[in-house]
Amino acid sequence: MAVSGDLKMKIVKGDAGYVLEDVPHLADYLSDLPTYPNPLQINPAYSVVKQYFVNQDDTVAQKIVVHKDSPRGTHLRRAGPRQKVYFEADEVHACIVTCGGLCPGLNTVIREIVCGLYHMYGVTRVLGIDGGYSGFYSRNTIELTPRVVNDIHKRGGTILGTSRGGHDTSKIVDSIHDRGINHVYIIGGDGTQKGASVIFEEVRRRGLKVSVVGVPKTIDNDIPVIDRSFGFDTAVEEAQRAICAAHVEAESIEHGIGLVKLMGRYSGFIAMYATLASRDVDCCLIPESPFFLEGRGGLFEFIEKRLKENGHMVIVLAEGAGQDLLSESLQSMNQQDASGNKLLQDVGLWISQRIKDHFARQQKMSINLKYIDPTYMIRAIPSNAADNVYCTLLAQSAVHGAMAGFTGFVVGPVNGRHSYIPFNHITEIFFNF
Amino acid sequence: MAVSGDLKMKIVKGDAGYVLEDVPHLADYLSDLPTYPNPLQINPAYSVVKQYFVNQDDTVAQKIVVHKDSPRGTHLRRAGPRQKVYFEADEVHACIVTCGGLCPGLNTVIREIVCGLYHMYGVTRVLGIDGGYSGFYSRNTIELTPRVVNDIHKRGGTILGTSRGGHDTSKIVDSIHDRGINHVYIIGGDGTQKGASVIFEEVRRRGLKVSVVGVPKTIDNDIPVIDRSFGFDTAVEEAQRAICAAHVEAESIEHGIGLVKLMGRYSGFIAMYATLASRDVDCCLIPESPFFLEGRGGLFEFIEKRLKENGHMVIVLAEGAGQDLLSESLQSMNQQDASGNKLLQDVGLWISQRIKDHFARQQKMSINLKYIDPTYMIRAIPSNAADNVYCTLLAQSAVHGAMAGFTGFVVGPVNGRHSYIPFNHITEIFFNF
Amino acid sequence: MAVSGDLKMKIVKGDAGYVLEDVPHLADYLSDLPTYPNPLQINPAYSVVKQYFVNQDDTVAQKIVVHKDSPRGTHLRRAGPRQKVYFEADEVHACIVTCGGLCPGLNTVIREIVCGLYHMYGVTRVLGIDGGYSGFYSRNTIELTPRVVNDIHKRGGTILGTSRGGHDTSKIVDSIHDRGINHVYIIGGDGTQKGASVIFEEVRRRGLKVSVVGVPKTIDNDIPVIDRSFGFDTAVEEAQRAICAAHVEAESIEHGIGLVKLMGRYSGFIAMYATLASRDVDCCLIPESPFFLEGRGGLFEFIEKRLKENGHMVIVLAEGAGQDLLSESLQSMNQQDASGNKLLQDVGLWISQRIKDHFARQQKMSINLKYIDPTYMIRAIPSNAADNVYCTLLAQSAVHGAMAGFTGFVVGPVNGRHSYIPFNHITEIFFNF
Amino acid sequence: MAVSGDLKMKIVKGDAGYVLEDVPHLADYLSDLPTYPNPLQINPAYSVVKQYFVNQDDTVAQKIVVHKDSPRGTHLRRAGPRQKVYFEADEVHACIVTCGGLCPGLNTVIREIVCGLYHMYGVTRVLGIDGGYSGFYSRNTIELTPRVVNDIHKRGGTILGTSRGGHDTSKIVDSIHDRGINHVYIIGGDGTQKGASVIFEEVRRRGLKVSVVGVPKTIDNDIPVIDRSFGFDTAVEEAQRAICAAHVEAESIEHGIGLVKLMGRYSGFIAMYATLASRDVDCCLIPESPFFLEGRGGLFEFIEKRLKENGHMVIVLAEGAGQDLLSESLQSMNQQDASGNKLLQDVGLWISQRIKDHFARQQKMSINLKYIDPTYMIRAIPSNAADNVYCTLLAQSAVHGAMAGFTGFVVGPVNGRHSYIPFNHITEIFFNF
Repeated sequence: MAVSGDLKMKIVKGDAGYVLEDVPHLADYLSDLPTYPNPLQINPAYSVVKQYFVNQDDTVAQKIVVHKDSPRGTHLRRAGPRQKVYFEADEVHACIVTCGGLCPGLNTVIREIVCGLYHMYGVTRVLGIDGGYSGFYSRNTIELTPRVVNDIHKRGGTILGTSRGGHDTSKIVDSIHDRGINHVYIIGGDGTQKGASVIFEEVRRRGLKVSVVGVPKTIDNDIPVIDRSFGFDTAVEEAQRAICAAHVEAESIEHGIGLVKLMGRYSGFIAMYATLASRDVDCCLIPESPFFLEGRGGLFEFIEKRLKENGHMVIVLAEGAGQDLLSESLQSMNQQDASGNKLLQDVGLWISQRIKDHFARQQKMSINLKYIDPTYMIRAIPSNAADNVYCTLLAQSAVHGAMAGFTGFVVGPVNGRHSYIPFNHITEIFFNF
Repeated sequence: MAVSGDLKMKIVKGDAGYVLEDVPHLADYLSDLPTYPNPLQINPAYSVVKQYFVNQDDTVAQKIVVHKDSPRGTHLRRAGPRQKVYFEADEVHACIVTCGGLCPGLNTVIREIVCGLYHMYGVTRVLGIDGGYSGFYSRNTIELTPRVVNDIHKRGGTILGTSRGGHDTSKIVDSIHDRGINHVYIIGGDGTQKGASVIFEEVRRRGLKVSVVGVPKTIDNDIPVIDRSFGFDTAVEEAQRAICAAHVEAESIEHGIGLVKLMGRYSGFIAMYATLASRDVDCCLIPESPFFLEGRGGLFEFIEKRLKENGHMVIVLAEGAGQDLLSESLQSMNQQDASGNKLLQDVGLWISQRIKDHFARQQKMSINLKYIDPTYMIRAIPSNAADNVYCTLLAQSAVHGAMAGFTGFVVGPVNGRHSYIPFNHITEIFFNF
Repeated sequence: MAVSGDLKMKIVKGDAGYVLEDVPHLADYLSDLPTYPNPLQINPAYSVVKQYFVNQDDTVAQKIVVHKDSPRGTHLRRAGPRQKVYFEADEVHACIVTCGGLCPGLNTVIREIVCGLYHMYGVTRVLGIDGGYSGFYSRNTIELTPRVVNDIHKRGGTILGTSRGGHDTSKIVDSIHDRGINHVYIIGGDGTQKGASVIFEEVRRRGLKVSVVGVPKTIDNDIPVIDRSFGFDTAVEEAQRAICAAHVEAESIEHGIGLVKLMGRYSGFIAMYATLASRDVDCCLIPESPFFLEGRGGLFEFIEKRLKENGHMVIVLAEGAGQDLLSESLQSMNQQDASGNKLLQDVGLWISQRIKDHFARQQKMSINLKYIDPTYMIRAIPSNAADNVYCTLLAQSAVHGAMAGFTGFVVGPVNGRHSYIPFNHITEIFFNF
Repeated sequence: MAVSGDLKMKIVKGDAGYVLEDVPHLADYLSDLPTYPNPLQINPAYSVVKQYFVNQDDTVAQKIVVHKDSPRGTHLRRAGPRQKVYFEADEVHACIVTCGGLCPGLNTVIREIVCGLYHMYGVTRVLGIDGGYSGFYSRNTIELTPRVVNDIHKRGGTILGTSRGGHDTSKIVDSIHDRGINHVYIIGGDGTQKGASVIFEEVRRRGLKVSVVGVPKTIDNDIPVIDRSFGFDTAVEEAQRAICAAHVEAESIEHGIGLVKLMGRYSGFIAMYATLASRDVDCCLIPESPFFLEGRGGLFEFIEKRLKENGHMVIVLAEGAGQDLLSESLQSMNQQDASGNKLLQDVGLWISQRIKDHFARQQKMSINLKYIDPTYMIRAIPSNAADNVYCTLLAQSAVHGAMAGFTGFVVGPVNGRHSYIPFNHITEIFFNF
């Protein structure tokens, strides 16, 4: 995507190499916006807490490991409630949309945006857009109230439905405008956030008083700027089941190999964390680290070595690992039989077959390989406690930001503190990753 | 297998159509065997219980649903401790072997045979045969004591290792004889129990004082004479996870189809019970019930109908369902590209591909199919509480039977009462199933 | 309760000591009732199954362990769909009520009565009575449709609410009559089923065409005639967590004692099965088996012995165990300080304190006792797969029975076959247990 | 504890308000210590990673939320492997001790210290001290090898056993010296770490080449300087079960109250996080926030209000909440009946009784309170995936630090980066908390 010229960073500089990459604000392009005192000031549940409001100068440092004299580096605006807000309760008309693949915690984020708007700011009009971006063009929307979303965080999936693609900026902004929506909460991955960034640009171009807020979703945890993405912790936990089963299967038979494929198209975080957590894995293959199959230093050699040493082994494989080997192999195949070969585009099935073929050909060692692909069983579960807490803070940060008039940003924890990150900061990273 | 002439039933008949299919006994072919009082008679933990011992006339009715005047039908010998035993504690040298695929509860059965022999009968010499039948020929055995097996019921798999095949009757009986083993506990499926039956025949032919006891293992629950097989309950429970995930995936996307393949080569019990338990399944395909894909009354039509009605659907498929369709389809394929086609021998992958191809070709309806194969994640888990209780009773019944001199039988609950079932009763059913 | 004279058994006798304890039928006291063909006859999902309908002569034997010449004993009417029904779909107006303490599976039973009536018999009018028997007097009812109950089996508790007591026969039957209800499904324990039995008597006395059906609920599994009660399997499974925690706590410290109290006021089934399943318990105390604390053969002596042998121990205690000791002890206490003593009426807290006091006094051995009471954590969970299947069959049996015109009965599996059991058969046992 | 004069901080200052609170090093009091290249330099598994070694100038900032011109504040030394180490592999003789109450992850920390020493540094001699500090005086030690600890991370508790107290500095340092131990890994809470700090002082006073390393353990998460303590995440996850059960119980009955007591003697982190995660709690009482029972603004009033609004409610209570109320109440009680009152020292039982008494006295509203104390069920479970990863990094950081010659420190993540924190930094906070 060519990032449009408008999307230039708001940069503030300070002493000792301090840099702030700030987020856009409605007041950047709309003048004379009225402000109102934050209703939390008189809410008994919040007003007792000292320093509940974020100081408007608070920023979050990205750089934690420093030397005595190193420059302070990049900072981000701290998330949280502000003393002043730019919307009145009955003025707000919010919408929420979920896009892309399933990820544990989607329903919790939805719930907490709805409940946060309602309980903290008295906002009662929240629409759920049905089935991803393309839902903006249909009249099928879901009215979201605290009652409707009350139990949804205990279920996997997304009550709004989801889809891939379907993004038409102009039609979406028309729909936002026509419905009188002024808060747009967009939950989705890199493609979705790029779309959100373009929606924000168009909203700004048209001079609409609409806050566009992204909640980044990637079960793979592949957004470097934030500490982790929601659902990741749950995914790693659930992946343990598959690894444990692979280990039991491998241990119970001579020369048993348990092979588990986990999510991670461009990064191996789930595979690596699941490996670290399980302590039972002999070999973890990830996209970041190339490998080869045959010959010295290859995977087959390593397998043979481990089976001889230990009698069995467990391999974890990120779905994006070895894609170079796979595409090479597929090109060399007979193109005739389509449906079988389609299956081999799954790197797990492909590599299982290659390992079996190798040892069958060798005839030195008879192996027993069991392949497990738990992907959909992981994606579809409800979020665990840690992700529920995280999703709650994420949603509340999003709501505080939109109420405070910020726009064109995503929310996320940076070194443990929730921050507002400008779209271009995050999408650039997404693109180049 | 040609059932040898020796293997004729021990049949006892009574009034009103009563038939007892009795089990063999060491005294059938060995004369003047000494007997001893059961040590449980003086064990404080057991002797306080009234009627702890089974009456020697107790039999278990197979027929429960009767009419006022229907014949009483077939009965089996009731399992449990007898007043007299045919082995002294320090005379017994037992061995345990596990064969075939993994099944939850294997370790519990092993543990309870060891602990049952030790705590109830004072038997201290128990050998674990390593890696299935072929382990009889190796010198690698595992000494099994209550301490060694103490925690194994909390782990999946089998600590003894397992394998398929490797059965050579003569060498096995030689090994039994050479090691001085006189209790042989064989845990395995139909093939394994046929092997056990032949071992028993050979032991009897040689006139050895060796009790051969089978513990039937089939995660598929496909032994009609017993109420259920161990591990089945655990498997159905665990299968819920996959079905639930399939349901969440299907629900969250337009025209979502969740397809789950479960175990069951010749019978659909796991698929059916998991379907009954989940209440979320639209269609359950099992080997017992043929179906076809195309045209009126076919699967594709049904899928289209459900998607139109309900927007999404869940299909559960036993691995043995639709094998006729599959083999027909594979025959018609281009034989050239072996590795892709091998994958298609998995009915779940094959049918997923067929459904996708059908709807892609149709272009009327764009579907989103997610396929889940949780087989190894189910087989490898530890047994649940119900299976632990069951495995304990099974193992203790086996031990009581061997100590009482019975041989050539398998143990299992019939209408809720543990019974001794002659090998030929169960293997005939296995064969003809 | 004085069992009214009307409640005499319908007894049928046959050859060889055959006895059938039959259930009442609407036709017993109403003449000229029209019958209709069962709509399942033309339902494509059922009509393909051979022998789907129960033969009207089918009975279920209670006696399974028999001798060659023993009398056939008591039989019960087999549950299941009949060829003829006594209600038309649009004539039926059903109600469901849940009474007493929580038990896993309540929601599944509710769901399956609703879905069974709807999908099998086309019945659309089902009312949920709110909050137990007393809900009959309020106008607050819940309309139950397949849509309303769609997901409730995945939640613990009861969506109808529950309460104890509140039974006023005359007002309840008035309410049934006034609302035009003709199927009454009553889910509850012994007190509740006694109430149901009296409601049935009153309905019969008034000559109403109303089927009164009980679904027996006791997490304790203390109904001898049926194989097990719903929720029991789930409870035993969940109890493993507490026992496992008690074991870990006990093992990790010198002279550690883990003490777990489980449900079971009059019977120790949960405690015993949980003990059998866990294989980690040293001592299981149940109401059926008296014990004492001090002196030779007492609990303190046993604890000291196990701690010396093994360093730690686990005790499981049914809530009804040792009630004689407890009441004796409470009587001897100072009556002044009410609130502390009230807590000691909990046998688990009381016995923990007694054990601690004993070893503190002794000063020979310093113990570390950890007491766990998981009762509410067990009762409140959703039913597991086995209980879901069971609850489904239970609910469908209840529906088939009511549609076939039977009344005054409870449903339950007897030796694995679902049966209709006359109220007086089951309440007599409840009373005398 | 009076902190000895020796324990003064090693403070380094830099520009812009930079402060480093450094950790002690063996070279601080021992001269001419030889150093060796880190064996990881030639380990193929590590040497391929760019920048695997920590730069010796790396420090971790404690302050993350900053203003443009705020001072840089306190920093800590970054944990991780150094290019040079102060021990040779066969010179190291390590010991590990666990003290205080159970906490999920103890076994993972033990496992990873053993495996880290072995696989990263080739250290083979590791002793487990049996049963806490007092185990230093007994000859009962456990030899710890990768094989012994292989599966222990899947079990709760600590394989080393634990105890409270038993600390005698002089005897412990004698025991360390006599056994030739030169790495001491001490896993425990605040009291334990104060003990570790004194052991370090004595070791330094005697001039021994012994690294003393603390691994802070507090399931309550009450150490402000580190991000979270191990086991906390697991505890919050497991606490969900109890809260969920309390919610189901409360919902299913009129005016139901579910009350859950969670750990947290001096801080309410578990209670608050569990409350945040569950989204079902109406009221969370923690030690940090005083409350009262009666009158306007009191707990009883709030309960009455919520029950009227919503029909049921859930209360979560940290064990240290309301201790002032409790001690006041206990003092006013009749002192005579000891054993009942002892139970009332449990704030959960006490407050349950007070709530029941209040509403019974009032007679306006009849409530149904269910009290759940899941403490031991939470403490005793194995660590979840997130805690396993965390414990692994914690243990490896400890090992890297000791090998690099650092001593007198605890390890822990600060703003997401593992750091070495001087004992006095952490114990001061523990004391004053």
